[in-house]
Amino acid sequence: MTQLTTDARGVFVIAVTPFHPDGRIDMESCDRMVDFYLDAGATGLTVLGMMGEAPKLTVEESRDVVARILKRVANRVPVVVGVSAPGFAQIDALTRMVMDLGAAGVMVAPPGSLRTDDQIVNYYTQVAELIGDVPFVLQDFPLATGVQMSSGVIARIVNDLPSCVCLKHEDWPGLEKISFLRRDGVLNKRISILCGNGGLFLPEEMDRGADGAMTGFAYPEMMVTVVDHYARGEAERGRDLFDAYLPLARFEQQPGMGLAIRKYTLAQRGIIAHDALRKPGAALSEASRREVDQLITRQEQRLKELN
Amino acid sequence: MTQLTTDARGVFVIAVTPFHPDGRIDMESCDRMVDFYLDAGATGLTVLGMMGEAPKLTVEESRDVVARILKRVANRVPVVVGVSAPGFAQIDALTRMVMDLGAAGVMVAPPGSLRTDDQIVNYYTQVAELIGDVPFVLQDFPLATGVQMSSGVIARIVNDLPSCVCLKHEDWPGLEKISFLRRDGVLNKRISILCGNGGLFLPEEMDRGADGAMTGFAYPEMMVTVVDHYARGEAERGRDLFDAYLPLARFEQQPGMGLAIRKYTLAQRGIIAHDALRKPGAALSEASRREVDQLITRQEQRLKELN
Amino acid sequence: MTQLTTDARGVFVIAVTPFHPDGRIDMESCDRMVDFYLDAGATGLTVLGMMGEAPKLTVEESRDVVARILKRVANRVPVVVGVSAPGFAQIDALTRMVMDLGAAGVMVAPPGSLRTDDQIVNYYTQVAELIGDVPFVLQDFPLATGVQMSSGVIARIVNDLPSCVCLKHEDWPGLEKISFLRRDGVLNKRISILCGNGGLFLPEEMDRGADGAMTGFAYPEMMVTVVDHYARGEAERGRDLFDAYLPLARFEQQPGMGLAIRKYTLAQRGIIAHDALRKPGAALSEASRREVDQLITRQEQRLKELN
Amino acid sequence: MTQLTTDARGVFVIAVTPFHPDGRIDMESCDRMVDFYLDAGATGLTVLGMMGEAPKLTVEESRDVVARILKRVANRVPVVVGVSAPGFAQIDALTRMVMDLGAAGVMVAPPGSLRTDDQIVNYYTQVAELIGDVPFVLQDFPLATGVQMSSGVIARIVNDLPSCVCLKHEDWPGLEKISFLRRDGVLNKRISILCGNGGLFLPEEMDRGADGAMTGFAYPEMMVTVVDHYARGEAERGRDLFDAYLPLARFEQQPGMGLAIRKYTLAQRGIIAHDALRKPGAALSEASRREVDQLITRQEQRLKELN
Repeated sequence: MTQLTTDARGVFVIAVTPFHPDGRIDMESCDRMVDFYLDAGATGLTVLGMMGEAPKLTVEESRDVVARILKRVANRVPVVVGVSAPGFAQIDALTRMVMDLGAAGVMVAPPGSLRTDDQIVNYYTQVAELIGDVPFVLQDFPLATGVQMSSGVIARIVNDLPSCVCLKHEDWPGLEKISFLRRDGVLNKRISILCGNGGLFLPEEMDRGADGAMTGFAYPEMMVTVVDHYARGEAERGRDLFDAYLPLARFEQQPGMGLAIRKYTLAQRGIIAHDALRKPGAALSEASRREVDQLITRQEQRLKELN
Repeated sequence: MTQLTTDARGVFVIAVTPFHPDGRIDMESCDRMVDFYLDAGATGLTVLGMMGEAPKLTVEESRDVVARILKRVANRVPVVVGVSAPGFAQIDALTRMVMDLGAAGVMVAPPGSLRTDDQIVNYYTQVAELIGDVPFVLQDFPLATGVQMSSGVIARIVNDLPSCVCLKHEDWPGLEKISFLRRDGVLNKRISILCGNGGLFLPEEMDRGADGAMTGFAYPEMMVTVVDHYARGEAERGRDLFDAYLPLARFEQQPGMGLAIRKYTLAQRGIIAHDALRKPGAALSEASRREVDQLITRQEQRLKELN
Repeated sequence: MTQLTTDARGVFVIAVTPFHPDGRIDMESCDRMVDFYLDAGATGLTVLGMMGEAPKLTVEESRDVVARILKRVANRVPVVVGVSAPGFAQIDALTRMVMDLGAAGVMVAPPGSLRTDDQIVNYYTQVAELIGDVPFVLQDFPLATGVQMSSGVIARIVNDLPSCVCLKHEDWPGLEKISFLRRDGVLNKRISILCGNGGLFLPEEMDRGADGAMTGFAYPEMMVTVVDHYARGEAERGRDLFDAYLPLARFEQQPGMGLAIRKYTLAQRGIIAHDALRKPGAALSEASRREVDQLITRQEQRLKELN
Repeated sequence: MTQLTTDARGVFVIAVTPFHPDGRIDMESCDRMVDFYLDAGATGLTVLGMMGEAPKLTVEESRDVVARILKRVANRVPVVVGVSAPGFAQIDALTRMVMDLGAAGVMVAPPGSLRTDDQIVNYYTQVAELIGDVPFVLQDFPLATGVQMSSGVIARIVNDLPSCVCLKHEDWPGLEKISFLRRDGVLNKRISILCGNGGLFLPEEMDRGADGAMTGFAYPEMMVTVVDHYARGEAERGRDLFDAYLPLARFEQQPGMGLAIRKYTLAQRGIIAHDALRKPGAALSEASRREVDQLITRQEQRLKELN
């Protein structure tokens, strides 16, 4: 069974959770989505993240989705599962469940009540004790969690806790954090740094030393392309292609509407059957749909020009 | 089976969840606690509220606790269960589960992301559609939720949704809200208004037209006494007794430490076996324990003087 | 003297406040900046906004900056001045001062404590009473203020208060708000809608019915170009040019670093003499400077391709 | 001229700012208030704090109020002035102004944007550099500022900055913070710890090692009495008297209404002429006024019983 390691790199796509219009989980679309992400070049998947509508699932549904996706992935790439929850009993139960099913590791965001450096470090220390040797991803996403971790706090967590193998870097954009963590002597072990924010700052993040992306965008090809070109030393070409996707990526990063746009786009591409979000969730207006359609058309034209 | 109605009055004690020092739920203490609350004069119980450490329980544990408490209560008083959750699937599943077990109704707090009047009203409209004819308590607790509901918004929810039968009033203290909601013509039906904040403003709340309290304090006798004296027209005597409990009640209302103090006090009184909180949770220092002991001693002296 | 009216359109550039490295205001750069903005096609200026470091100026300095800029503008375009302050006495004093100096109107953001619809409407009603017939811009910028105004609340304010002549639209991006406010029958008067967010959603905003932009970006040419092309019915060409500026615009919109990037870019362009921010303020790392330089180079190349 | 030192103890009353009903500052009431506070046993005064409606004053008004109060105090006790402001230029200007007028020191609250330990320490380091050798009070009031300082952060600030002579302790109640800071070896110098929260936890705070209170309550006699009895080793008697004031103190500590209650009470006592708050500010309902009256009556009865 694949375990998440400090060498994780490439693109871990944050998977959406596909629903039928009546709110049931759409398992067929789950399969199709997995195939699509892997065909697009994903080196890993992350499920039950914030953009996976995890908090809207019952525990049973979470188990079913994770099981279905793991079965379809069939060990081709590592799968990380989000297990953030208000209490340790829930984190513990979720972690055991998904690791038993075959997950490669778990991802933990800080609860919104944490403020001081010590509170944050203590929280992750307790989490690490709780889940034992399960490798975990530290999620640093202040815009969503309200918790601000300094670079020094991240270093303390990474250095103290052997099971912290990866940083999902999603401070906005916090480029200096990457530079700091990559500086000699800051960390006592290498960790994987995978970046978020829908890939909106991926070229700069790669320049600073990131290993890739762990985020969602209806065109994961963009992230794969950028990471690949940087790996091959073709940064300028990577940026040209990045720029072609940027108008849509920017549109998808609208807080409050982003997931609806992403699902609509995935549905337009035929990857999931419906663009339904579970309640409570924003619906996309007809005008917004047309705006997305137009951005897709323009994106395709620009990509053609670049080929 | 008792159903919660718009006539609910008296004291619905917010039950703690007793744990063993190793974190397991202490079911024997649950029984003893139920007996104690009912002997003290509680006219109802509320379980799995914020102070019941609900978010720290797994779904199975929540079911077990609710089942145990309902069995012990044995229909002597109505039991309300907190079902607040980030998604509707979870609220739905929890509601079905606890109503099947024999709960009298559910309590729903607003998710912290709600801001505008319409967002709040829409949320409760969707919740009411979801749970059908299950009576629910609207929890208005801005200090904890971050959501501020104007009196007008509460009136809209109560007037639009027949299954909203009770307001857990916990704005700080929001005495004007009670006065407004009790004004002729504001509501199209009577509702029960039960107040929170550990009873810290209960005399004034009764004066404004509240029906009682729905809150926790290690001496629920205080709330019962105040409500009873107001019911008998002996407000001054009610206030004398209230004042005797106030130094400890004030101490217990310290944010971040309140539940630890409450559990310590309940354990000192022999009602629960241990004062353990589940992680993550604050521990009480030795100094604080002595402070509580001293407050209890002084409280007993003052109550003696008053008898 | 120019008064701000409901017909304001085009691009009101949010002016930065130039400083010397030692923190003194750089008045020569103020002049050069005004000339540059007007040459670039600005139809108005907005000074002492959040990005103008207004809270870091003393009252005397605010007066001096506004006086200098108004003198240089010499009535060629209307100048709006931000007067947001915690208390009405300050708002009143600032408003009188800047209107006496020749400002065209003032801009008012809601204090962060406002939550309910009525609180927001009441606040603006009191502000309008306070400042009399001075035309004002309603600033809707939840990401910065923490205050969420529904479309309905904005409509109430606009309809109730004749002196509310313009909406600085900066909800993120809140395209539906523009559509709603432009719908027949919603408003009892036309208002100007000028959009913010560094122009990051300007094409879509123009499509929805905006009159232009009121925001900052080190290349105000971008906003002017987009607005002009939309006015001429050449939306596609406008979008092509927009896309060329987007990589840098995106980079400049990083919270916490945006103003430092903007000032660095303006200094690189020779418009202001120094990129200094007043304390407390973020400094730009050497790496970030190089990132900006690279983005400027790529932007120039792409603009050349498009000509 | 009196300078604030690390030996400050007793009760520094947070002064309200008295207004006429039309909003003008009521200077005669300022004088009467100063006399009253000093007669009541205040060992210091603090003006232009949050409860002094400082943000609602223009700079000129701030100067006039401070000058009037300092003149009336006439060096009998040290006067601390709140100088918190969004920018350093304002803090600098205010500090110079009030120190020139004869203030004993200044008080600085952290801006709400600070989150990490380093951000907080850096902020105060910069403030201390800015204001030179002016002694300052560190205000730790998370409920109002949103900034949480750990005990360790406070210790770093105190140890690094010689001009930090006093902590206004207003974490809620943060008794453990006092114990920590009084532990041998934590601080490299003694500091004064004066507590806030309207005196609601003053007995416990004195037990933990506080030097007194720096807070407001319409009966400053309460704080003076508690501090004096603790100083004389008569803690039990101090608590008896504290308990007599507690019902009103609790009522005055209602967020959003506290200042209106305090001013109403001061006006009822004849100390200030009017209970007016400046806009925007909450008005006290007729019902609330009667509630305060009743609490005063009961308080007087109880105090009589205790004498």
